Amino acid sequence: MPVSEQIKPALRPYLAAAKTFASGAQTPRQFLERSLELFEWWEPRIGAFVCTGLPAARAAADKATERWRAGKPLSAIDGMPVGIKDIIETVDMPTEMGSPLFAGWRSEKDAANVRALREAGAVIVGKTVTTEFAASEPRGTRNPWNTAHTPGGSSSGSAASVAAGIASAALGTQVIGSTIRPASFCGCFGFKPSVNALNREGCHDYQSQSCTGILGASLEDTWQVAHEIVARIGGDAGTPGLQGPDVLPPAQKPRRLAVLETAGWEGATASGKEHFNEAIARLKSSGVEIRTRHNDDKVAALETVLLNAAELSHRCNGWETRWFLHCMVERDAGKLSRNILDRAQKYEDMTLADHRADLKERARVRAMHAELAGTCDASITLAAPGGAPEGIAFTGNPEFAVPASLLGVPALSLPLFEVGGMPLGLQLIGYFDRDADAFAFASWIFSLLARRR
Amino acid sequence: MPVSEQIKPALRPYLAAAKTFASGAQTPRQFLERSLELFEWWEPRIGAFVCTGLPAARAAADKATERWRAGKPLSAIDGMPVGIKDIIETVDMPTEMGSPLFAGWRSEKDAANVRALREAGAVIVGKTVTTEFAASEPRGTRNPWNTAHTPGGSSSGSAASVAAGIASAALGTQVIGSTIRPASFCGCFGFKPSVNALNREGCHDYQSQSCTGILGASLEDTWQVAHEIVARIGGDAGTPGLQGPDVLPPAQKPRRLAVLETAGWEGATASGKEHFNEAIARLKSSGVEIRTRHNDDKVAALETVLLNAAELSHRCNGWETRWFLHCMVERDAGKLSRNILDRAQKYEDMTLADHRADLKERARVRAMHAELAGTCDASITLAAPGGAPEGIAFTGNPEFAVPASLLGVPALSLPLFEVGGMPLGLQLIGYFDRDADAFAFASWIFSLLARRR
Repeated sequence: MPVSEQIKPALRPYLAAAKTFASGAQTPRQFLERSLELFEWWEPRIGAFVCTGLPAARAAADKATERWRAGKPLSAIDGMPVGIKDIIETVDMPTEMGSPLFAGWRSEKDAANVRALREAGAVIVGKTVTTEFAASEPRGTRNPWNTAHTPGGSSSGSAASVAAGIASAALGTQVIGSTIRPASFCGCFGFKPSVNALNREGCHDYQSQSCTGILGASLEDTWQVAHEIVARIGGDAGTPGLQGPDVLPPAQKPRRLAVLETAGWEGATASGKEHFNEAIARLKSSGVEIRTRHNDDKVAALETVLLNAAELSHRCNGWETRWFLHCMVERDAGKLSRNILDRAQKYEDMTLADHRADLKERARVRAMHAELAGTCDASITLAAPGGAPEGIAFTGNPEFAVPASLLGVPALSLPLFEVGGMPLGLQLIGYFDRDADAFAFASWIFSLLARRR
Repeated sequence: MPVSEQIKPALRPYLAAAKTFASGAQTPRQFLERSLELFEWWEPRIGAFVCTGLPAARAAADKATERWRAGKPLSAIDGMPVGIKDIIETVDMPTEMGSPLFAGWRSEKDAANVRALREAGAVIVGKTVTTEFAASEPRGTRNPWNTAHTPGGSSSGSAASVAAGIASAALGTQVIGSTIRPASFCGCFGFKPSVNALNREGCHDYQSQSCTGILGASLEDTWQVAHEIVARIGGDAGTPGLQGPDVLPPAQKPRRLAVLETAGWEGATASGKEHFNEAIARLKSSGVEIRTRHNDDKVAALETVLLNAAELSHRCNGWETRWFLHCMVERDAGKLSRNILDRAQKYEDMTLADHRADLKERARVRAMHAELAGTCDASITLAAPGGAPEGIAFTGNPEFAVPASLLGVPALSLPLFEVGGMPLGLQLIGYFDRDADAFAFASWIFSLLARRR
């Protein structure tokens, strides 16, 4: 493939390709080789990876090839090329967390979810770029749709590598908007599960809203990765873990959807709103009832209480990571960004009593949202105010992703819209522990709206 | 101090000593120097430490001395010499987890609870010996009461260092019996809090029953350490954390206590039972009503269901750590003990569905125990079947500590008895999130029973 050839970002779903593996028409190794060609072309342009393990990846793909040939794949994702956000531990590669304080640092173990992926046969291509400590300071990754634009963050490299077709799925994390936002900006599927649904042991974020997020090339791939993880390691210790079937739940038409116009909605781009309104019109004409703040008091009340979502989330996170940031400041403040130093400063005066009050308020908001389940199957909104903004010094506005983070509920970004040549996702927000339902409704909505794209 | 001088194990409570700091009659540095003399004498005999940071400890004690002199201590434990179980991360010392697989390994950060201790002014003497991965393979620590005997495990070095007077408190962990058992064997106070009550981030155990345990030289010291930790880092992310006042809750006479004769009771030593029965007699004659399986159906039902406590706990732990052990086996099975290899094997066939069933059963048992709160203020039992057994190849029977671990409730071991020259603890078991009540009752009981020791 000549370097001069202009390659467009294109998702490369794995489960669809895997249908050809049993017959030998294609092999996981061949699938990986195409990934690596794309890596060669894209990586100098987008900088999605911190490091790679290509020989190990090829060896793993060969083993997967043998297993498929023998009709004994370890799982449906056996051989799938995946990326791992560099905030998540890997036994065979450093985990640098986007910080010079952890340059070359090795955990000497896999995170639980990485171990699960290996046991399912997934092929780990490399560690993907994260912002500093999965917070806001970006580390140079570019958007494959336009390399002058941010891919979003903090799962920057995970989203970019899936969008570029290098990986069919990549692990991210989300505590504010770190999976849904980059998924939207890069035009891949993004899944932030119910809080605690995927065991986070060995992921270096320390917050109660943190989730293992999945960036995927298809809904099918995304669900499958989540399922293969939970089947092997469960949810966070002591929790039941992601609930649902062992393949993508069948598409289900929602009876009623809530439209959430949360904080920042008035700042959404005109064309973003236009796409969204058109989507709503099509949902309505397909017989889906739409509830908004104008015709549903519960929606109105939820929107009002969610105005505080970002502030409350940041306060929770601020308290929960303060000890870690103190430790880093003491190690070497000169190796921390202005961004993170400001953050470390901001929540200095919080007390445990303050934090308990915040947790109580969060529980109240969560309970309000849970009540909506009585009337609406799910909520929809945009995944971001618009396409990825120009520049790579800022990962973009996370406001639209915050509500699901605060609520601890599943959210999906569906790559359905385009604004000025950049992707924009429709976001579906489900209910706690009902991640499978969220996929079922998302699947139906995606089919409907993708048809005339 | 001549090496030939025979030193007896003696607890060195810090808060009592700190009363002299304001006047300058004694200083934290002087308190530490005595700790270090004791370290010099004891360490070759008991092997409680993996590594130490003595220059840093002296510097920290000097700073504490200045603060007390200025009337501005960082907290009530400012200057307290503490030990940190080597399964817990420290930024300035390796964290080896009792495993050659982590020889010299550095986390490059403090665990949350270690950071909290530093911010409260505690002086970290060193990392204390843990069994391999805080499981059952011992690493050579000896009991200061008789160096031919085990100190118990897995918080072996933490208990031994407190018993020897080197530290006034030490952090341990407990998931089966790792705090209560060594506290009992070494004759110090042991506190296993309600599950989630102290933030465990940076502690390398991955189980839903795991707790940060505290080995302390007095009830007052033990509570204070727990309080200073929670005030700075809270509970596990998203939980309210240890509830209670900022100094030891005042002693409170229980109206009614349940006596729990759980699995293994029939194997308790005759002299252990004798001490326990005498204690019950004294409680009764002091007007405390005693409920047993003979006069309380709820106690009888709870005892019956707790017969399965060890098996159920081990199954939960087995599932929850399987991914980690797989990872270690793949790194180098030759560096793992037979004990841990057997454990890794034992739960191979468990599925997520099995684990969910176990969690459900555990929740059922917990609910049964919670009901007992309607009639009994707390439960009492022995902390171990007897004194520490001879030999250091086995950390002793943990059976008596398992129920509180399974139940996720606070437990305290009170150094009240002696069996053949070895200490034995009375165990008090409280109710979830009511750790302060457990201390209040324990305090009253300890005062009553210690009087005629």
